[in-house]
Amino acid sequence: MMTPSEALRISREVSKAVREVVSDIAGKKEAGENVGMGKDGTPTKRVDRLAEDTALEILKGYDVVVVTEESGVVGKGDVAVALDPVDGTFNAARGIPIYAISMCFAGLNGRDKAKYSDSFFGYVYNLATGDEYYADDEAYKNGEKIRVSETERIEETNAILYYPDRDYGFKRVRIFGAASLEICLVAEGSMDCFIDIRTGKGKGMLRVYDVAAGLYIAEKAGARISTPSGENLDSKEFTMEERFMLVVANKKLHGKLLNLLTVRR
Amino acid sequence: MMTPSEALRISREVSKAVREVVSDIAGKKEAGENVGMGKDGTPTKRVDRLAEDTALEILKGYDVVVVTEESGVVGKGDVAVALDPVDGTFNAARGIPIYAISMCFAGLNGRDKAKYSDSFFGYVYNLATGDEYYADDEAYKNGEKIRVSETERIEETNAILYYPDRDYGFKRVRIFGAASLEICLVAEGSMDCFIDIRTGKGKGMLRVYDVAAGLYIAEKAGARISTPSGENLDSKEFTMEERFMLVVANKKLHGKLLNLLTVRR
Repeated sequence: MMTPSEALRISREVSKAVREVVSDIAGKKEAGENVGMGKDGTPTKRVDRLAEDTALEILKGYDVVVVTEESGVVGKGDVAVALDPVDGTFNAARGIPIYAISMCFAGLNGRDKAKYSDSFFGYVYNLATGDEYYADDEAYKNGEKIRVSETERIEETNAILYYPDRDYGFKRVRIFGAASLEICLVAEGSMDCFIDIRTGKGKGMLRVYDVAAGLYIAEKAGARISTPSGENLDSKEFTMEERFMLVVANKKLHGKLLNLLTVRR
Repeated sequence: MMTPSEALRISREVSKAVREVVSDIAGKKEAGENVGMGKDGTPTKRVDRLAEDTALEILKGYDVVVVTEESGVVGKGDVAVALDPVDGTFNAARGIPIYAISMCFAGLNGRDKAKYSDSFFGYVYNLATGDEYYADDEAYKNGEKIRVSETERIEETNAILYYPDRDYGFKRVRIFGAASLEICLVAEGSMDCFIDIRTGKGKGMLRVYDVAAGLYIAEKAGARISTPSGENLDSKEFTMEERFMLVVANKKLHGKLLNLLTVRR
């Protein structure tokens, strides 16, 4: 079986190559042009296509099954990789320096689909700045261990929230437009929570390949993660279909947030 | 009288020096430590103090009156400069690459206070990335002319909105935490509007030195600017006291937004 350190080496190989192709077109109009339709049913932008082609070219040299936005499920092996080659495509197309490649590695153990609970390595890399987050048994940013904040009070909370539908009383609300990186901001204690309560067809808007790596990093940094109704995410599968809502925060704040969000509006 | 090209030269001299001192501590814990109380009545962070000291040291070599967050009104001359040495302090302290120095130059014409309508040059510089926005008679990003978007439909609008209190039907909502840069994103057409409807003691939250430069750039790029009730901003003074709410967008969208925001909730 692949080790976390092998997964790290592969992640860096992929990220370096993707950063090179993306940096050539980030912020240029062509980056945001539609070049086809993705397997997820949304249009594929040129920057996504370039990044994904580059990532898959490298990953096909390894025994992995890749689950990805544009191409669906590709490859064979005993490890599944949830890949988002460019999380934050909108930002990348406009040169706003908050977009990342995200990869989560999980053991298949003879099954044809991995679940989030099978994850053993998460990797998120800001393609604009080069900031690197990953987690094996511990979580790191640029090689230094990271930890969630200890903020407990709602009025002191710096929240990432998709989308505010009323005033929850947070100190600050931010929406940067790249979930994988935003969850890493929670993992490192820069922001106190990440919340996505968008319902999108009743199931939520987030997909496994958007957030699995960030979630794995956040958990290893001390975060608690669940849906807003408190559902555990362990059984979420690395498939195109899974969609969910999400709350990520330190353990004490997490409980308060679930209460806050379920109060009848 | 100072010319726009002299203002540009001074702005670049100041920004270069500020970027050097800020890059040493951005993303480090000490950047966000309180080091005193600003003239605006809020705590001064170390990164603000360092940046402002550096900017004022240079600006005192010129005949300008500087209006600024931490030090208040300093200097003498026939030109007023609304200075925010670090707009987006929260981001700077956390290494989130969206923070800027903002300078708006206005003629005093013998009076002791400048109004927004006296402005003749606006300058906003992302201290993390080096992206430079300015306007004299035209608006530029990194030397290229910029223009607001032509988006007219609310459901196609990418909005910056402080803060959402309900679902307005925008395509996307973003909150990056640096108003000067966010207004420049509207000026360049990357985002379609900037809205701040926070009431803060009934007057609004934005101050002249936060946004004057961005507003001047946005207007020269074709934006219409006003308060949410449609009030013109020309008479807003470069003082510590002025506070207001704001709507910035292309002319057609701007009118629709004023309607949308005044619909009874």
